[in-house]
Amino acid sequence: MNKLTESDHQFLNKAILLAAIPVGEVSPNPYVGAVIVKDGRIIGEGFHAKAGTAHAEVVAIQNAKDNNKSTVGATIYVSLEPCCHHGKTGPCTEAVLNAGITKVVYATQDPNPSVAGKGEKFLIENGIEAICADSESARQINKIFFHNQIKKTPFVTLKAAMSLDGKIASKSGDSKWITGSDARLEGHQLRVEHDAILIGKKTLLNDDPSLTVRIPDQNYSNPIRVLLLRTFNGIDHANYQLFNTEIAPTWIMYPQNQSIDTALKAELLAKNVRLIELQDDEIIVDSVLTQLYEEKVMSVLLEGGSSIYNAFITAQKVNEFALFYGPRLIGDAKAPSLWDHSNITDLSEAPILSIHATEKLGNSIYVQATLKEVE
Amino acid sequence: MNKLTESDHQFLNKAILLAAIPVGEVSPNPYVGAVIVKDGRIIGEGFHAKAGTAHAEVVAIQNAKDNNKSTVGATIYVSLEPCCHHGKTGPCTEAVLNAGITKVVYATQDPNPSVAGKGEKFLIENGIEAICADSESARQINKIFFHNQIKKTPFVTLKAAMSLDGKIASKSGDSKWITGSDARLEGHQLRVEHDAILIGKKTLLNDDPSLTVRIPDQNYSNPIRVLLLRTFNGIDHANYQLFNTEIAPTWIMYPQNQSIDTALKAELLAKNVRLIELQDDEIIVDSVLTQLYEEKVMSVLLEGGSSIYNAFITAQKVNEFALFYGPRLIGDAKAPSLWDHSNITDLSEAPILSIHATEKLGNSIYVQATLKEVE
Repeated sequence: MNKLTESDHQFLNKAILLAAIPVGEVSPNPYVGAVIVKDGRIIGEGFHAKAGTAHAEVVAIQNAKDNNKSTVGATIYVSLEPCCHHGKTGPCTEAVLNAGITKVVYATQDPNPSVAGKGEKFLIENGIEAICADSESARQINKIFFHNQIKKTPFVTLKAAMSLDGKIASKSGDSKWITGSDARLEGHQLRVEHDAILIGKKTLLNDDPSLTVRIPDQNYSNPIRVLLLRTFNGIDHANYQLFNTEIAPTWIMYPQNQSIDTALKAELLAKNVRLIELQDDEIIVDSVLTQLYEEKVMSVLLEGGSSIYNAFITAQKVNEFALFYGPRLIGDAKAPSLWDHSNITDLSEAPILSIHATEKLGNSIYVQATLKEVE
Repeated sequence: MNKLTESDHQFLNKAILLAAIPVGEVSPNPYVGAVIVKDGRIIGEGFHAKAGTAHAEVVAIQNAKDNNKSTVGATIYVSLEPCCHHGKTGPCTEAVLNAGITKVVYATQDPNPSVAGKGEKFLIENGIEAICADSESARQINKIFFHNQIKKTPFVTLKAAMSLDGKIASKSGDSKWITGSDARLEGHQLRVEHDAILIGKKTLLNDDPSLTVRIPDQNYSNPIRVLLLRTFNGIDHANYQLFNTEIAPTWIMYPQNQSIDTALKAELLAKNVRLIELQDDEIIVDSVLTQLYEEKVMSVLLEGGSSIYNAFITAQKVNEFALFYGPRLIGDAKAPSLWDHSNITDLSEAPILSIHATEKLGNSIYVQATLKEVE
């Protein structure tokens, strides 16, 4: 840390900003940006744009070449420790070495314990100076990747839209729209950032949502829609928007041995809805997440309803809360709240959160929070 | 407006800042600050410190004298149109005239329709230039006074502390403390700004609150505590903190013809609790407010519980919502929310608010909102 100058930090921040450009496109990879500097000037820059394409370091080196600049003796600033393993593309450490780069400043170590430090080791063994800045902001943009690497499960975000008095719908189940358009846009942004959106039966039946990404002038791909069902009871047809897989994949996950009406099953399969039997007789959140992770789902956005929220909060599997408050008072003891099944009696039992950000979005409020780590 | 220069605005802002210094002390008067400027320099300044004491203009003129500065030919900047009536002190317009001041820039007109413009008229008739800046921030610091003058009722603020999921207590009635200490401090600040705090029976019985102002290193006087009761049922003794009138006055308001246990009545009277019979057989919010206004209560802070909130929201008598969200999820359908009695079925019936401010206070969030005016 002490070895870094003010301009080192500026170049590193630029690399971190570049990393964050391809929102939602790189999963299961991390966001990575790189800036190559020689004689105090940027001669090349790049970011990892999509899984399967070139890594940021390689893009930046190529960019320097395209600019007719020599990278020999240059410094590269990277938002993550350069990889030293052969994946779909070659290791970045070798690319750095071959480019004649003599110094690497990177923002964070690789979170994967079996890889962390190996990139640095390779660099040092090959005479390249390597410095880790240990940057919290770089960790934040890769919070999903860090969680995946450490926990080997999907990162789970609970998104809820409420009135100012905490109601997620009126007594009649009406929830369109509790928040304003600016808040809903942020909600769509969250969809982009996640591999899958998960809802329960009640949300399907009440809202018939499409769960697609709708952001003006953008063309993001839609996440996988996951319907988590305890039973198929109450689903009488396959005409819900969710079952139109021409716009996005749809998976239904349900406990093993749950019976499905034959006609419904045929209809769902004809529509290319994927039916995934869980390995338990009931819904166990841990197993659901393990199974999703095996299917390469790195992040899940929970969009209701109350039973889904309850299952994931109770299982302590919510990594982040994205709470939106719209400018209304709904009231009525019978109108649903976020966590009606909590069964908490005294305040001392209530989970404590850390509030990380509060933002006014048009006429609504966005609050980002996480469960407070017990010391 | 067009006639004002950049430096006019700066001096006027200074006057507005001065006005706001004596928080909670001036009721039923407005907050007023004044700055006297000559040759581009401030030669005197002052603010109205307490009802019954000198007005801001007079204080500023005296301050200039104390500084051995002549006010002849000077400009005075005042946060409110100078008064021209004889109250407890003489009219400010005459003081301005006698001081030889030749120009008055004031931030807002007097809100009282029968007074508005009269101060200006007097000044102009006496050869003094008068300009109104029509400043929204000056109106905001006097929102209570403006409301009083126009509506002739107390300004009502609903204060509620909730969990992030909108619960004002747990199922067992536990509400200590839902929000953090920074939020609670802001709550005490709200007490300072109001003449009275009003609660219902359930809050008395559940919380036994003292409702005093507790702000470190400050010595504000406590507001009047008002207990609004439908009946005396359930109040078995007079040992609640609220009935200790040595720390602050306590008024109990109740529908006429409600019977009080003789012993309880004697005990309450012995403790100097004031018993105020309403002029109706039930609680009518309008009448309660009228009666409080007649008692010179210019502002009321509602501190719960749910029935009190319901009565005032339903009567559309809440002028401002001060909502505090603490960093917890409480959940449970049986835990109380802000407005359990709303009886709202569809979203279209839910009142819409305007959110004016959102602030993170330590680990809690403060939201200031008002009912949206129907266009």
